[in-house]
Amino acid sequence: MASQTEYTQKVVKIPEADLHRRVHDMLTAAGASEESAEACTRALVYASRVGLDSHGVRLTPHYCAMLKSGRIKKNPKLTVETTGPATAMLSADDGLGHYAAYAAMDKACELAAATGLGACAVTHSTHYGAASSYAVVGAEKGFISFSTTNTDKLVTLHGSARSFHGTNPLCVAAPVPGQKPWLMDFATSAFAFNKIRLASALGMTLPEGIAADEAGELTTDPAKTRMLLPIGGPDFGYKGAALGGLATLLSAILTGTTLDHLMISMFHADDVTTPRNLGHFLLAIDPARFVGRAAYGEAITRYLADLRTVATRPGETVLAPGDREWANEKVRQQEGLPIDLETAAFLRFAAG
Amino acid sequence: MASQTEYTQKVVKIPEADLHRRVHDMLTAAGASEESAEACTRALVYASRVGLDSHGVRLTPHYCAMLKSGRIKKNPKLTVETTGPATAMLSADDGLGHYAAYAAMDKACELAAATGLGACAVTHSTHYGAASSYAVVGAEKGFISFSTTNTDKLVTLHGSARSFHGTNPLCVAAPVPGQKPWLMDFATSAFAFNKIRLASALGMTLPEGIAADEAGELTTDPAKTRMLLPIGGPDFGYKGAALGGLATLLSAILTGTTLDHLMISMFHADDVTTPRNLGHFLLAIDPARFVGRAAYGEAITRYLADLRTVATRPGETVLAPGDREWANEKVRQQEGLPIDLETAAFLRFAAG
Repeated sequence: MASQTEYTQKVVKIPEADLHRRVHDMLTAAGASEESAEACTRALVYASRVGLDSHGVRLTPHYCAMLKSGRIKKNPKLTVETTGPATAMLSADDGLGHYAAYAAMDKACELAAATGLGACAVTHSTHYGAASSYAVVGAEKGFISFSTTNTDKLVTLHGSARSFHGTNPLCVAAPVPGQKPWLMDFATSAFAFNKIRLASALGMTLPEGIAADEAGELTTDPAKTRMLLPIGGPDFGYKGAALGGLATLLSAILTGTTLDHLMISMFHADDVTTPRNLGHFLLAIDPARFVGRAAYGEAITRYLADLRTVATRPGETVLAPGDREWANEKVRQQEGLPIDLETAAFLRFAAG
Repeated sequence: MASQTEYTQKVVKIPEADLHRRVHDMLTAAGASEESAEACTRALVYASRVGLDSHGVRLTPHYCAMLKSGRIKKNPKLTVETTGPATAMLSADDGLGHYAAYAAMDKACELAAATGLGACAVTHSTHYGAASSYAVVGAEKGFISFSTTNTDKLVTLHGSARSFHGTNPLCVAAPVPGQKPWLMDFATSAFAFNKIRLASALGMTLPEGIAADEAGELTTDPAKTRMLLPIGGPDFGYKGAALGGLATLLSAILTGTTLDHLMISMFHADDVTTPRNLGHFLLAIDPARFVGRAAYGEAITRYLADLRTVATRPGETVLAPGDREWANEKVRQQEGLPIDLETAAFLRFAAG
């Protein structure tokens, strides 16, 4: 499971269709082509619908600014090269990363349908939003689907006083007959940066071992936080650092795109015109080539039923990966998607 | 990086060739076929050489006992079915898992050479030792290689009072020109069970949030520990639980083998005759089908050089994943492989 909504500020709740239309219109007004705007909107609205608010429609103003400044190309032409029976490379042409990533996931599934496995790596891309946007699409087509990207540096290594990896997400979505997918999706940092901002706004102290200051010293002061520690914190951070490195390995080293620690910062760079050349990696596995779709479906159904009914510690609940997202989705499809007032104003929705 | 040696007991140091011969002879004396004994010995000696002592030659007595009792088949016939251009299924025929896993990694590499990706899933298998034994072989052939297995339950879910997953390792090895592979390899539990045993022997208290007692309550008493918590502990354990589930998804659900929580215990079952039907999953990715081998080699060399020279926090050292294993290997190849006295006695080496 990934971050859940922790709004303390006021929100307005917007029906999904209205939100979709408005985000799309803002992106096209900023110059994005119809196709790339539609893909970006799809990914942002998905994230806002399932509760991944940090990667939801609140990013619209940022993408609009980068479309206008020239860092993100307005009318990209995707080019796909099939490099083997199971592999492809896709150039995003410096356009919105969501547009390229949906196309790459489709290509990976197409290859997997033909050979059993398919991978499509994306080059010359930009921020692609929530990693699960794409893996869920692959799962809905019946494939176990993997999605990762690298990003600009924000996370230390295990023991380093400097950030070296991005928050580099790893996401796997697996189909479940008659149910929403099993969905593993998390950043490889110990904590999400948007939660640091929230703690700062509330004057709260952070847990030990998740953040470092400008000098790389551990801190519990959110206002002084400039870097995050990898999953596992000061004792077991070598596991998180390796997972962050895995995202870089597949997204950048394997594809020839820019390494995290050499990449222009997403939010904090003066340079808003040079393309950042991010990489993504999308992989699909066809259960039909292993135990077969029927037996796979029975096994994952049994596994999830047993998992969801296991005895819990007092006061605890056990959820399957993704259950929180799908619960959020159900509520939000009925009540509307909660949008913070700043983003609502940008999107020209009246404050509730 | 995985567990390092923490011997407090006396050891004898044995030259690798002598150790290899003796382990092989013990396994064949217990009835294992020449081929399966050789593969098992190769994996155990590898683990003892690189410092993964919990998965090294100390397992020889266990495997010998299970060969004699009949749980592990003495003379297995591997059968491989190529199920697609990029996929295969391999039945281990209930023999030593190492034999099947080396063959499956070879098959995955063969498929990847032909199509860009290759996966070989193993069914009807037994404990396969250290996950990295196989991924390192794939990396040495030039492929980014992934190795995972499920095991009998020992690790809780996030919030559960019962164990549900095994310690389920995830391992990725990536080739580095002129160097040993980049090597991510860890259990998805917060702590290794052999470290619990060591803490118990020394009367030490465990860190908070890594262990639970018979009733599923958190404990810091190693003697009372019956289950481990997933990576991330009580706060972020949903990440570790999802990673443990990923091992189960690929090893068991995708292959039709036994789920962790339904599997006969490796060490604590009265039944030592029924095969356990473990699954493994081996995957290979060919860099030649992405940015190309030369550019990949340059990128990972640059990445590792920058990683190894990053500024550190006072008193800390930054290592790349695998550096600890390769340092252990270098020392042990010169000094001999340290073997605890109990195992040395079983292998009929004189106490030092």
